[in-house]
Amino acid sequence: MSKPAPLSGFPEWLPAERLVELEVLDTVRRVFELHGFSSLETRAVEPLEQLLRKGEIDKEVYVVRRLHSSDDDTDSLALHFDLTVPFARYVLQNAGHLEFPFRRYQIQKAWRGERPQEGRFREFTQADIDIVGRDTLAFHHEVEVALVMAEVFRALPCPPAVILVNNRKLAEGFFLGLGATDAGAALRAIDKIDKIGPAAVAELLQSDAGLSAEAAQKCLALASIRTEDTSFVEQVRALGVEHPLLDEGLEQLAAVVGTAYERMPGALVADLKIARGLDYYTGTVYETQLVGYESFGSVCSGGRYDALASDGRTTYPGVGISLGVSRLMGVLVGRGLVSASRSVPTCVLVAVNDEDGRAASEGVAAALRARGISTEVAPKADKFGKQIRYADRRGIPFVWFLDDAGGSVKDIRSGEQVAADPALWTPPEEDLRPRVRLTTTEENHP
Amino acid sequence: MSKPAPLSGFPEWLPAERLVELEVLDTVRRVFELHGFSSLETRAVEPLEQLLRKGEIDKEVYVVRRLHSSDDDTDSLALHFDLTVPFARYVLQNAGHLEFPFRRYQIQKAWRGERPQEGRFREFTQADIDIVGRDTLAFHHEVEVALVMAEVFRALPCPPAVILVNNRKLAEGFFLGLGATDAGAALRAIDKIDKIGPAAVAELLQSDAGLSAEAAQKCLALASIRTEDTSFVEQVRALGVEHPLLDEGLEQLAAVVGTAYERMPGALVADLKIARGLDYYTGTVYETQLVGYESFGSVCSGGRYDALASDGRTTYPGVGISLGVSRLMGVLVGRGLVSASRSVPTCVLVAVNDEDGRAASEGVAAALRARGISTEVAPKADKFGKQIRYADRRGIPFVWFLDDAGGSVKDIRSGEQVAADPALWTPPEEDLRPRVRLTTTEENHP
Repeated sequence: MSKPAPLSGFPEWLPAERLVELEVLDTVRRVFELHGFSSLETRAVEPLEQLLRKGEIDKEVYVVRRLHSSDDDTDSLALHFDLTVPFARYVLQNAGHLEFPFRRYQIQKAWRGERPQEGRFREFTQADIDIVGRDTLAFHHEVEVALVMAEVFRALPCPPAVILVNNRKLAEGFFLGLGATDAGAALRAIDKIDKIGPAAVAELLQSDAGLSAEAAQKCLALASIRTEDTSFVEQVRALGVEHPLLDEGLEQLAAVVGTAYERMPGALVADLKIARGLDYYTGTVYETQLVGYESFGSVCSGGRYDALASDGRTTYPGVGISLGVSRLMGVLVGRGLVSASRSVPTCVLVAVNDEDGRAASEGVAAALRARGISTEVAPKADKFGKQIRYADRRGIPFVWFLDDAGGSVKDIRSGEQVAADPALWTPPEEDLRPRVRLTTTEENHP
Repeated sequence: MSKPAPLSGFPEWLPAERLVELEVLDTVRRVFELHGFSSLETRAVEPLEQLLRKGEIDKEVYVVRRLHSSDDDTDSLALHFDLTVPFARYVLQNAGHLEFPFRRYQIQKAWRGERPQEGRFREFTQADIDIVGRDTLAFHHEVEVALVMAEVFRALPCPPAVILVNNRKLAEGFFLGLGATDAGAALRAIDKIDKIGPAAVAELLQSDAGLSAEAAQKCLALASIRTEDTSFVEQVRALGVEHPLLDEGLEQLAAVVGTAYERMPGALVADLKIARGLDYYTGTVYETQLVGYESFGSVCSGGRYDALASDGRTTYPGVGISLGVSRLMGVLVGRGLVSASRSVPTCVLVAVNDEDGRAASEGVAAALRARGISTEVAPKADKFGKQIRYADRRGIPFVWFLDDAGGSVKDIRSGEQVAADPALWTPPEEDLRPRVRLTTTEENHP
């Protein structure tokens, strides 16, 4: 085999980069579990017709079939393109075995046949939380999931993140209060502000949503409102639009932003242009920007849906938010913001004096491992200089030498060497595992 | 959507079952990292022609293409059927960025279009370790990887496991010493003993491998040898066959089994019928039986290959062993051997006195989480009896009540309730996280 080439859109990481990804995944999992979310995985494939029900993305689906396929049931399968559709199916399938409200997290790969570009992959990892009720789901969960993700971002080695929040009822109520004939069309128009600019959006609001030129300007004014606290309410009221749905949306968004402002100031911002146009949300909606890296797009999005799933008799409302781990990696590693202190988990390399003495070196390694210290034994009884270089090239901080008196351990960074007992010696806490840290200046982090 | 049906061969777990799988995955990862293996993941797809080079399994491959495919490079992709082929490709692709010998672990899903049956899935998770050299790889790694997996099995909540070890050189040398014209055919014949019985194998050894009837009986005698220590060497010698390759194989197998017998008696067994017939191993080979569940097949297999990968100029020898996580789950969960103490990570449910007091309950939850205690706040300010039932149905052991004096925490299993401060109270260690344990009698475990 000649040297294989990478596949565009299917990212793979080198060992030190993978350590960054593991740090992200471990942090995400730890925070999710602290909040009582249960881990789930769903199979990679769904029946093709289930995936195509969300018609918008049918061009992007990867179909899966056996090479020598027959009239087998797996002939109409496709790889899932998100974790929400499979989870909705899982809830319907297993509802009798689940306790509602059901809180789950799901960290898995998904696949889309999109044209790859910076921050957009064909294979990517997502980390989702959802809370799903049976028939009803309390509003306070719409506050909760955003705060869980805000806690994730505070715990991650990453640039500051701002979760932008809006509410579908607020936007739709505002459009209806202005006399819009098609509130959905207005929402989709607003969703395009960053792409086509306000003038073109104003045109669309008139042509597609049945609004007057003056009303379209009010919509643009609404979309320009962005506040860290609940002062957005007054700014919206000042636009003079009235509608019961607008009242409800304002109240809900104020509850989300007000609670967040108390508990984690700066983490959430009311941003009234957030629309998530193509999705089926019915209440709070979320997007997330990494400050300084807004061009990568939202790294964490979601919202409230009144019918995540329904079997005709029972409806399951939900609220969920999904962290784009691969997109985040595209920033952290792709832009060189974060790095690992070494490329291996190993803390100690035990040197080998000669091949006959390998068992003694293995004995030292076993004693260290028994106390949770990641240890390798040198692969070859080379000269010690060469064994030290083996450690150095991998970033392993300590080399252990056996001698007649017992042993000694050398910090190969400082050169300091001390006598040590493998049953007692412990490395400094910061050397026990690879550390993953922001390599940018501290000022870049809140 | 009406109630969806499961897809045969694509297992999914309920939350409490998934906790068992997480315990398996966490244990595997912990042991692998203690031994200095680096985590890697490869993309789910490989070019179809690369997968088909291993001709034996072409009927089992899942092809992947975009629904509206064009002359795109992704049209000839397929899902990987193991983690070895993608890893070999990864090594060639990234050799310039890796340090050799390179130690990696990889825990991922793989897919085969096989007919599903007990212990055999179409989508399954594997946990592999491999050590790969450039040009050369020392023999002692063939001892090492087996002992790492033996340590994994000792750490897992599972029935006792026995790793069965043989050596290709031993078997091939023995066949050649007997005058076999096709040592590979002899190996494939021996591989069928459990399926077709010794008489039919004796036939095959004569018809396909060019052996006499007497020589075929010696092969069967060889295949019946099984010892925990190195006494197999004498038993093989007693059969009176001579060949330099046999000598080398005996020496290597004695080194593996002898070291294991010293360091972990009972974990490894020399079993001279182990052949792994269809694979491309060149030295030590491994299979693993769970005692009492042998019919599930090997849960952990692998071996030494002199050419894991080659680009024509450089050859990369390797040794690897792969744990079948899904097959193991088929035993542990499918047979009800293992269970989790609760279905959620949550240790404490904080009760809500009334919806206006939710913020105070959230404050208690935040204080507990800050000290690593998984905590939920009750979803509704129901009567306390109903809030306790919410916890009880999920197996959450503690419910926290707020009162004017501060708070108190109730162990809902014993009914004991004590005054407590959220900044200080700590649950018993065994309640902090869900415990995953064997539900069978202790005698079943070594």
